[in-house]
Amino acid sequence: MDSRLIVALDLADSNQVLEIAKKISNEVFAVKLQWITVMDKGISVVKELSKITRVLCDFKVADIPYTNSNIASRVANSNAWGIITHSFLGRDSLSAVVEAAGNMKVFSVVAMSHPGYSEFMKEHVHDLVKVSTDCGVYGMIAPGNDYKMLREIRDLAPDVKIATPGVGAQGGSAVMAIEAGADYVIVGRGVYGSSDPVASTRAINQEIWSALGMA
Amino acid sequence: MDSRLIVALDLADSNQVLEIAKKISNEVFAVKLQWITVMDKGISVVKELSKITRVLCDFKVADIPYTNSNIASRVANSNAWGIITHSFLGRDSLSAVVEAAGNMKVFSVVAMSHPGYSEFMKEHVHDLVKVSTDCGVYGMIAPGNDYKMLREIRDLAPDVKIATPGVGAQGGSAVMAIEAGADYVIVGRGVYGSSDPVASTRAINQEIWSALGMA
Repeated sequence: MDSRLIVALDLADSNQVLEIAKKISNEVFAVKLQWITVMDKGISVVKELSKITRVLCDFKVADIPYTNSNIASRVANSNAWGIITHSFLGRDSLSAVVEAAGNMKVFSVVAMSHPGYSEFMKEHVHDLVKVSTDCGVYGMIAPGNDYKMLREIRDLAPDVKIATPGVGAQGGSAVMAIEAGADYVIVGRGVYGSSDPVASTRAINQEIWSALGMA
Repeated sequence: MDSRLIVALDLADSNQVLEIAKKISNEVFAVKLQWITVMDKGISVVKELSKITRVLCDFKVADIPYTNSNIASRVANSNAWGIITHSFLGRDSLSAVVEAAGNMKVFSVVAMSHPGYSEFMKEHVHDLVKVSTDCGVYGMIAPGNDYKMLREIRDLAPDVKIATPGVGAQGGSAVMAIEAGADYVIVGRGVYGSSDPVASTRAINQEIWSALGMA
């Protein structure tokens, strides 16, 4: 049974990220990286990690088309499996990422889980989904602790993959997120903060498989 | 006379960035860096550059408060003079950057220069200025090729520093941006793409000083 779990290794020490990734690579769908890890020694960590498992670069790309394209090209050349970009900067900025990504999967952020997101972004969720679909993204990022929103996005975009953060430490349930339409759940501290990351990933996999009747 | 020029060294090769920065450091107010340069060998380039000149990290920070805080702390610890963050993710995400920044200057993006920005962001510019002011940012980023918008932002936020990209290769005039209320103009290709970066920075400085009657 394939794992539906993407583990966020939000750590500043790139060696530590590589060590944990080696341990859990057989148990997860992918690992997710942030800029904080790239700051350590550069993007070479993505190349190293990509030899071990799928790497989803959570870079929340949010710039003009020219800069977005530069970032996405460099990430694609580092053999990342996917990249996370914002969509609120409009069609041209998002298309720049999709075009530069080549075979790399592009996930666009269409909704988020923190309170501040409701100030400006929330009213645009449906339009962000539409722009993302029009630009041909592979997937979308939507909060795993707002099941109503997840279902809306699932209905609006039946053909994309949805990956959901906000599960575990941030209060969402992996099983409920999957049942609401998520394809992948993203868990961070619940794994990298665990004394036994392998056992923790297995437990989450089992929880999801049991709920789906696949265990 | 102090320079009003921030030079964007949007290059993937961190050694090349350091070389150009050494040449122009006496002629500029600061240099601006993007992620693409950090991808080379990590954030250590900011520490190196900070020995030479002020460094403004144009990282367009756009994540949940926890992640924003992690990014801003790391950048502050690398001795950067300033950081550029988005404000559309709301008050909590922006405050997280301001708090983690410590003495580092925070510039928030309130308007941009590419067409796609008008799809979702443009209608929120006044609110983004208000949130940014409330959160106590040092400066704002606003397009140097939209003088009407610049004047509006200047009027709404008289006490912040405004830095404007979009000058030079992207069509804006440095002098007109300054006259519309910008404190600093950001020029990239016009300097790093020049065969004589020092002469190019001097020419832009002179152009601005002449227009301001300070030459």
